[in-house]
Amino acid sequence: MGNIRLKRIIENMKKHNINQLIITSSSSIYYLLGLWIEPGERLMALYINTNGTVKFIANELFAVKDTIGVDLHVYKDGEDAVQVIANLAENTVFGVDKTWPSHFLISLMDKKPNLKFINSSFIVDEVRMIKDNNEIELLKEASKVNDKVMSDLINIIPEKHTEKELADMLLNIYKKHGTSEFSFYPVIAYGENAAQPHHDSDNTMIKKGDSVILDIGGKTNGYCSDMTRTIFFGEPDEECKKIYNTVLQSNLTGINAVKPGVRLCDIDKASRDVIEKAGYGKYFTHRTGHNIGVEDHEYPDVGSNEEMTAKPGMVFSIEPGIYYPGKCGVRIEDLVLVTEDGCEVLNSYPKELTILK
Amino acid sequence: MGNIRLKRIIENMKKHNINQLIITSSSSIYYLLGLWIEPGERLMALYINTNGTVKFIANELFAVKDTIGVDLHVYKDGEDAVQVIANLAENTVFGVDKTWPSHFLISLMDKKPNLKFINSSFIVDEVRMIKDNNEIELLKEASKVNDKVMSDLINIIPEKHTEKELADMLLNIYKKHGTSEFSFYPVIAYGENAAQPHHDSDNTMIKKGDSVILDIGGKTNGYCSDMTRTIFFGEPDEECKKIYNTVLQSNLTGINAVKPGVRLCDIDKASRDVIEKAGYGKYFTHRTGHNIGVEDHEYPDVGSNEEMTAKPGMVFSIEPGIYYPGKCGVRIEDLVLVTEDGCEVLNSYPKELTILK
Repeated sequence: MGNIRLKRIIENMKKHNINQLIITSSSSIYYLLGLWIEPGERLMALYINTNGTVKFIANELFAVKDTIGVDLHVYKDGEDAVQVIANLAENTVFGVDKTWPSHFLISLMDKKPNLKFINSSFIVDEVRMIKDNNEIELLKEASKVNDKVMSDLINIIPEKHTEKELADMLLNIYKKHGTSEFSFYPVIAYGENAAQPHHDSDNTMIKKGDSVILDIGGKTNGYCSDMTRTIFFGEPDEECKKIYNTVLQSNLTGINAVKPGVRLCDIDKASRDVIEKAGYGKYFTHRTGHNIGVEDHEYPDVGSNEEMTAKPGMVFSIEPGIYYPGKCGVRIEDLVLVTEDGCEVLNSYPKELTILK
Repeated sequence: MGNIRLKRIIENMKKHNINQLIITSSSSIYYLLGLWIEPGERLMALYINTNGTVKFIANELFAVKDTIGVDLHVYKDGEDAVQVIANLAENTVFGVDKTWPSHFLISLMDKKPNLKFINSSFIVDEVRMIKDNNEIELLKEASKVNDKVMSDLINIIPEKHTEKELADMLLNIYKKHGTSEFSFYPVIAYGENAAQPHHDSDNTMIKKGDSVILDIGGKTNGYCSDMTRTIFFGEPDEECKKIYNTVLQSNLTGINAVKPGVRLCDIDKASRDVIEKAGYGKYFTHRTGHNIGVEDHEYPDVGSNEEMTAKPGMVFSIEPGIYYPGKCGVRIEDLVLVTEDGCEVLNSYPKELTILK
């Protein structure tokens, strides 16, 4: 078996005493087999047993051929694909991917009443969180594209568009740089809207003095980018400038705290302390970051409850923000790669306070 | 309890001897409570017991207030929302909506090992398939918009765009007519591409003689439209004209067969026979139609295995097609509403063979 990622999954199953599981999410199948399939209502599953049995079960509609050495079972509409899994299953603990639709699980329970089911997504999540060299190159490339896209986007802000218009123009900018899809729908928010962390871009027109949050990401060759910059359109008031510099200091302090062995909650704390000391603690309402890879949000978060330590090969965001109601919002986000002795920042777009005229 | 739709669900539960179930899909929650929530990784469930206990469980993030008289349980991140369901559940059969993520079900199994789980989506599907007067008005309005959009779309075909360009322009046409989203991503296919029923719109440029399949739908006030027209760009060859007229005859024959009491498989057969008699049977590779409502594809299909009869209040598509490899493809689709004595066609855009110059 030449699939190194699959080997790492099986090692992790042994470590956690899980002999068999199925992997069913599109992103994990892509990670392991290099195939992006959205099966819709049809069953898709990769059955893995630590005894060496590995089988990928997919509908003929998806015309799967190359599965990197993994045994393939192709079924037609009308065939009972759950029975294929039931035939493979041993009567022990059986790991199930967290988002597998319940009706498949209920059907499997009916066929195999002695199985003990557990949620086993963490087995895959723990492997996916340590990126290999190929993934690191892809993530670096995706963030390089994002830097260029951010530059183009900021250049058109003086043309004066609504939030929604700017969001609608963004995909074409990604396409110009060879990236055809978003990794998430962009957050573009002006002034008071920027002070609401969950604001959806609307028909608000930009006006002088606004802070402008630009939280954007593309999916390049299967891997995600995610960066936020905040700029000002015309001279902001003094408090917003102070808020900007506080968030920038928080972003830099968080990045500076990243190295192997440091708990993710302590990285969160390093960023958060800067904002709390400046008196804006209650306006930093979310976690400091999240891991990223094939999906924009991967396990684990960089948050106050996450005691896991940073490990070489993790890639995550550092994205502190201050959302000052009725006035302005500022968030500054970079992706970092944990290295042997610290971290490498994947984004290079400048972060100094910028006032567009 | 003033919620008539909920009453119909409870009646159907009693009919099928299911005392308790949870409804978790966004579309069914919208249907019952008028709220469109995409809960992502967070638990959302409407627990219904035929003894009258009804409770909607949702995360505080979604700021739910009005639930049309249904009891509400709002939980915060970090709370165990599955426990709320476990506390409500009686130790009998427990119905689960088909797409509920497995990890919630596994957690519920751990808390309530004596429950017997079954897939209960059919309880809701059977109620949703009979549209009430309010839904019928909304579906008619959505199809009226679709007629206008089809007209605008066909008018710009002589400007010569690629399939993808035309697809990209379509959303703005819907917006012009007050509809802001697709009910599905449009199928726009030219010539040989139109002969592949699963073709994704690409950079193919229109050329003289092409058949042009336009399968489009928008979501207007929560309800879906779905219509297909096929036109020719320049004079087609004789066989393609014959194919067109065969499909048109098949579409009209299918519509003519629709009335209460006729099995859906017999409506499929009425459409299919026309195509088979003309010698193109093997090129009609899909079912004749599907029900539609809050979702573009609803239960049940109008297909060769569906023995259910048509009932007043059903709304479904009649969409026969012939996909003649290497040459052309033709599909003609209308939505129909089953009435007391026949059906009403919801689309009025003309269907005569049209050759654009």
